[in-house]
Amino acid sequence: MRATVMYGAGDVRVEDVPDARLIEPTDALVRVSRAGICGSDLWPYKSMEPTESGRRMGHEFIGAIEAAGSDVETVKRGDLVLSPFLWSDGTCVFCQEGLQSECLHGGRYGFDDVDGGQGEAVRVPQADGTLVVLPVGEDDALMPSLLTLTDVMGTGHHAAVAAKVGPAKTVAVVGDGAVGLCGVIASKRLGAERIILLGNNPDRITLGQEFGATDVVRERGEEAVERVRELTGGFGAHSVLECVGLEQAVVTALEVARPGGAIGRVGVPEHDTTATGVAFWKNASIAGGPAPVRAYIDELLPDVLEGRIEPGRVFDRTGTLDEVPDGYRAMNDRDVLKFQIEL
Amino acid sequence: MRATVMYGAGDVRVEDVPDARLIEPTDALVRVSRAGICGSDLWPYKSMEPTESGRRMGHEFIGAIEAAGSDVETVKRGDLVLSPFLWSDGTCVFCQEGLQSECLHGGRYGFDDVDGGQGEAVRVPQADGTLVVLPVGEDDALMPSLLTLTDVMGTGHHAAVAAKVGPAKTVAVVGDGAVGLCGVIASKRLGAERIILLGNNPDRITLGQEFGATDVVRERGEEAVERVRELTGGFGAHSVLECVGLEQAVVTALEVARPGGAIGRVGVPEHDTTATGVAFWKNASIAGGPAPVRAYIDELLPDVLEGRIEPGRVFDRTGTLDEVPDGYRAMNDRDVLKFQIEL
Repeated sequence: MRATVMYGAGDVRVEDVPDARLIEPTDALVRVSRAGICGSDLWPYKSMEPTESGRRMGHEFIGAIEAAGSDVETVKRGDLVLSPFLWSDGTCVFCQEGLQSECLHGGRYGFDDVDGGQGEAVRVPQADGTLVVLPVGEDDALMPSLLTLTDVMGTGHHAAVAAKVGPAKTVAVVGDGAVGLCGVIASKRLGAERIILLGNNPDRITLGQEFGATDVVRERGEEAVERVRELTGGFGAHSVLECVGLEQAVVTALEVARPGGAIGRVGVPEHDTTATGVAFWKNASIAGGPAPVRAYIDELLPDVLEGRIEPGRVFDRTGTLDEVPDGYRAMNDRDVLKFQIEL
Repeated sequence: MRATVMYGAGDVRVEDVPDARLIEPTDALVRVSRAGICGSDLWPYKSMEPTESGRRMGHEFIGAIEAAGSDVETVKRGDLVLSPFLWSDGTCVFCQEGLQSECLHGGRYGFDDVDGGQGEAVRVPQADGTLVVLPVGEDDALMPSLLTLTDVMGTGHHAAVAAKVGPAKTVAVVGDGAVGLCGVIASKRLGAERIILLGNNPDRITLGQEFGATDVVRERGEEAVERVRELTGGFGAHSVLECVGLEQAVVTALEVARPGGAIGRVGVPEHDTTATGVAFWKNASIAGGPAPVRAYIDELLPDVLEGRIEPGRVFDRTGTLDEVPDGYRAMNDRDVLKFQIEL
C-alpha cells in the first residue's frame, strides 16, 4: 500500500510500504478515505534529523472497517469509523476517568508497528476502545467537520475546558491556526461572552470572526498583552487558550490572563524542559498563589472555634517581642517550626 | 511604640518606631496581642540587602481595636480582631469573587506607611473589608489556632483547594513546614483518603501524622518521586500541595503528580522568572496537555451531525495522497491553514 513517510526535515515522501494487516485479536483494519495534516506534523517537518528508515506520518483519519480481530465487538466490516489521534483501550483506570490520552495500554499512530493515518490503510490497536462508528456515508458534506473530531476540534475544546470557559467569561485565544480557530468554536459553544482572537493572518482572522471571535488582536508580544488589557478594562481575560506551543506564546498567554484566571494549554510545547512542560505531558493542572485568606477565614473559623482542627499546634515556641530576633534565627536554623509572639 | 525592623539578611531588631495612628477614615488601629513569624519572613532574613532605613516586619497578628476611623462600620473599640496577611477592601470585583489577595485597593503590611504585624500596634487600612471580629477572649486556648488563620492555615487550605483535594483522593504534601502541615490538616478536612507527607524532620513528621498524614516519604528529589510512585501503584498522587517554593520542590511536586492530577502551589517562588512564577503571582491556573479526544468525540459529534458547529471549515485545501508532500510545504509556509487528504 502507499503511505506518507518522513525522512527528515522537509523530506516527506509518499511511497510503497508493507500492507497494513491485523496482528492482535483486538485490532481493526481501516481503509482510509480521508485524512488530515496536523500542525504538530510540522514540528518534525521543521526539525527532524535525517534517517534512512523514515517515520510513518499521520494521526487524523476516517475510513471503513475492512477487517476486525476476533476480540473486536463494537465495529464490523463496512462501518465508517473515526479515530482519535491516540488509540486507547477504553477500560483502564484513566480511560474510565475520561482521560484516554493517558491510557495505560494506548499509544500513537506511526510508531511501533502501527501505521500512520496519512496512507491507504491503518491497523488500529484496541479497536473497541478507540474507534467511533459514524452514522453517515463517506460522501456526506459533514466529512471535513467530522475529520476535525480526530484532533483539532477536540484539542481546541480541551483548551477551552482547561481554561474553564463558560457563560459570562471573557476568553483570549492565542494563535490563529486550526486549533486556535477550533478553540474559538469551542469557546462560543461553551457560552463565552467575549472571545478575543490573537493572530495576524487575514483569512484566518476572518474565519475566526465567523466562528465567533468578537475582537481581534493583531499585535504580538508585549503589544498584544497591552491590547488585551485595554480591551478588558486592564484586567486580562478570564480564560486563555494557548494554541501555539512556542515559548513566546506561552508567556503571552500567562500575561493576558486575569488575576484568578485560567490558562488552557494545548500547543505542543516547543521545549519540554520547563516546569509547565512536565505538567503538559501528563495533563496535570498547576494552580495557586497568594492565598485569599480573608475568604477562607469565614470557612475555617467555625472549625477552629469548635475544635475540629488544631493548626495552632504548628507554633512550637512562644516568646515576647524582645525575643523576636532569636525567633528568626531559630526558625532559620530549623530549631523552631514556627514562633509565636505574645505581647 | 516598639516594633520589629529588618535591616538586612540576619539583622532583625526590635526598636522604637513612630506610634501607629489612624490616617484614613477607613483605617482601624489595632493593639497587637499575638503575632507570628512566617516562613516567608525568612526569605529576606536569608537574602535582604543591607539598608539604613530598615523594613517593618510581620503580617500575622491578632489584637484589640483601639480606635476606628469615621467610615469604619464593622469593628469598634475593644473588639478582638484577626487580620488576613493582606488587607483588602471587600468590595472590589476581585474581593466579590473571593479573591481578596488580588484586591484592587489592597496591599501588604510593612510597606507604604502601613505598620508590620510584629510590633505593638498596627494601622489597618480598609478595616471593614479586612478584619474579622473573634467571638472569644484574648486568653482563650484557641488563640494559637486562630492566629494561623491569618496566614498558614489559610495558605495550606488554598494549596488543597488549588490541588482539587476531595474524597477518595490521594494527596502528596511537599514540605513539612507550617504551611505543609496545615496542608495536611486541610486535606484531611476536605476528605482525602490518603495523605503522603514529604519531609524529613522527625518532630514535624510526627505532628503531620497527628494531623492526618497516612504515609511519610523522607527521601528527597528523584528518590522521593520513586517512593511516592511506589506508594501509589506507579501512578502518583491525584493532588499535590507544593508548600516550599524552591525550584527543586516545584519539580518534585510536578513529578509526583498523577496523569490528570492537580498541583496546588503556595510556596513563595524562589525565582519569579519562570512561566509558573508569572502564574503564581496572579493566582492563575495552568492546565491542559494532549487532549483526550476520544472522550470529546462523544460530546461534540452530535453538534457536528446537527450542523451546530462547522470546524471542517479549517480545511482550506484538499488533495490526493500524492499531493501530501506539497501539503506539508504549504502548511509550513502558511500558504494553507490545514490540508485535507482524500483517498
